[in-house]
Amino acid sequence: MSTRIRGVLAPVVTPFGDSGAPDSQRLLQQCLWLQQHRVGLAVFGTNSEANSLSVEERIDLLDRLIEGGVARDGLMPGTGCCAIPDSVRLTTHAVSNGVAGCLMLPPFYYKGVSTEGLYRNFATIIERVGDARLRIYLYHIPPVSQVPIGFDLIERLLRDFPGTIAGIKDSSGDWNHTQQLLARFGSQIDVFPGSESFLLAALRNGGAGCISATANVNPAALAELARRWNSAEADALQARADVIRAIFQKRPMIAAMKCAIAHSRTDAAWVRVRPPLVELPPAERAALIDELSAAGFSLPPLASQRV
Amino acid sequence: MSTRIRGVLAPVVTPFGDSGAPDSQRLLQQCLWLQQHRVGLAVFGTNSEANSLSVEERIDLLDRLIEGGVARDGLMPGTGCCAIPDSVRLTTHAVSNGVAGCLMLPPFYYKGVSTEGLYRNFATIIERVGDARLRIYLYHIPPVSQVPIGFDLIERLLRDFPGTIAGIKDSSGDWNHTQQLLARFGSQIDVFPGSESFLLAALRNGGAGCISATANVNPAALAELARRWNSAEADALQARADVIRAIFQKRPMIAAMKCAIAHSRTDAAWVRVRPPLVELPPAERAALIDELSAAGFSLPPLASQRV
Repeated sequence: MSTRIRGVLAPVVTPFGDSGAPDSQRLLQQCLWLQQHRVGLAVFGTNSEANSLSVEERIDLLDRLIEGGVARDGLMPGTGCCAIPDSVRLTTHAVSNGVAGCLMLPPFYYKGVSTEGLYRNFATIIERVGDARLRIYLYHIPPVSQVPIGFDLIERLLRDFPGTIAGIKDSSGDWNHTQQLLARFGSQIDVFPGSESFLLAALRNGGAGCISATANVNPAALAELARRWNSAEADALQARADVIRAIFQKRPMIAAMKCAIAHSRTDAAWVRVRPPLVELPPAERAALIDELSAAGFSLPPLASQRV
Repeated sequence: MSTRIRGVLAPVVTPFGDSGAPDSQRLLQQCLWLQQHRVGLAVFGTNSEANSLSVEERIDLLDRLIEGGVARDGLMPGTGCCAIPDSVRLTTHAVSNGVAGCLMLPPFYYKGVSTEGLYRNFATIIERVGDARLRIYLYHIPPVSQVPIGFDLIERLLRDFPGTIAGIKDSSGDWNHTQQLLARFGSQIDVFPGSESFLLAALRNGGAGCISATANVNPAALAELARRWNSAEADALQARADVIRAIFQKRPMIAAMKCAIAHSRTDAAWVRVRPPLVELPPAERAALIDELSAAGFSLPPLASQRV
């Protein structure tokens, strides 16, 4: 377990250029900045608008990040799609590039599918990728995917692919569910809640860290909380993180985080999202910036980089 | 309106080979058979397991169907994906091949998205495809996609793209909703309920036909009902269609239809589905065949074909 990725990871938001294409230079800059502030990179997650990107766009972006010097062992790209050939292609590409792991959504078009059907999806991907380096982090996010990763599925996968199933991201938003995962599977796999609201609680109960949207904007503070979870300051650090999260969470999170990044970098291009998402309206952007300022919050500085 | 595709369309089930790859020869045979029995081909719909296919697999299959002699003006391929580049690529390919129309799901990963965001998705696709031949059939299937196509969205799209928005498939399963669509938009676009249960009612209220799963197995009878909807036999034809549908509908529909095709053709390969779906268990297959037989039902014959 010691070599597995732990701590705080950001589901890195994806910048778009004028034409609507992903902006690999800005993404690289963001990833290097996040790594400087000691958070891992769960690129191509829900907050990355990954399912709004084609397979080719994701492959190209990952290539650019690696060429640009992003640390491979800090990468956990999302590679789970509705279609097995897409999942196999993305996963094979990621593993061959030496990433720490792959975060895998279940196929999310059909609803009410069986455990057997989901098992076959993951088993087929693992067999076709056929690489002992593969580390899968199952992605449980029923509020969005509407297709849960049940305990029975985890049990079957762990029994048949014990070295490959490395962890789970629990974006249920339900601490009781995270606790049950920790109690039942915490000795075998790494459990990452999908929100830093549960970061301290998770670390106190054997969790591995968290993979949380706001790590995109508040990386240094969350990484500090994860490092100092056993210190006297931990509760105060958690409380402070919760204040910042609340400001983002009462708005559409992805659009709000992009606004905060745009404001911090004085770079309006960062505001863009891809349909079906929409940008925050201007008045809402101003209100967000005001609230963050009133809370004494600003993004950590962008250190000088060679990009 | 007179040149638009009407009547009964089958969301054609997709056969898979030993390796799990789509079987283009069997699909071609099925499509030619369906066209012989006078139903249109809504290939790459929900019943086609289209979202379990890669973009490349769908493009290759459509090429093979057209090479194999399937009538282009009977084709309404599904081309709506979560990622705009995928939708643009599939739609451009379909339109350039002269299909009758494209059936478009909304992007279905994010839930609770705004009308504005969905509008931008369709508007971007229409503008990027940039082909006056494009005819879009919006695909409303909230039980599966969880992302509805609202009346406000239809109104905006019709206002801005009146020649392009040609119809809607209503798979809400709610006749009241279909009636509202017919009353509100029936003079401008073609409304296809997603089940033949509503075929007669739709045709009596100005609907265009239906796009229904069981047209895969019961094409001739449904096509006859659509042709003779204004005759004295119409209610009896509808009642008979309902009896057959009920036998399939009480099981997982896609797996059940594939079993019936496999049985009819004495071709076990047809039973296969792609994960996350699973085949019917053997006992359930036998029960299905028994019930169909007891109802006096068999698939129409496979006419001799040059495939």
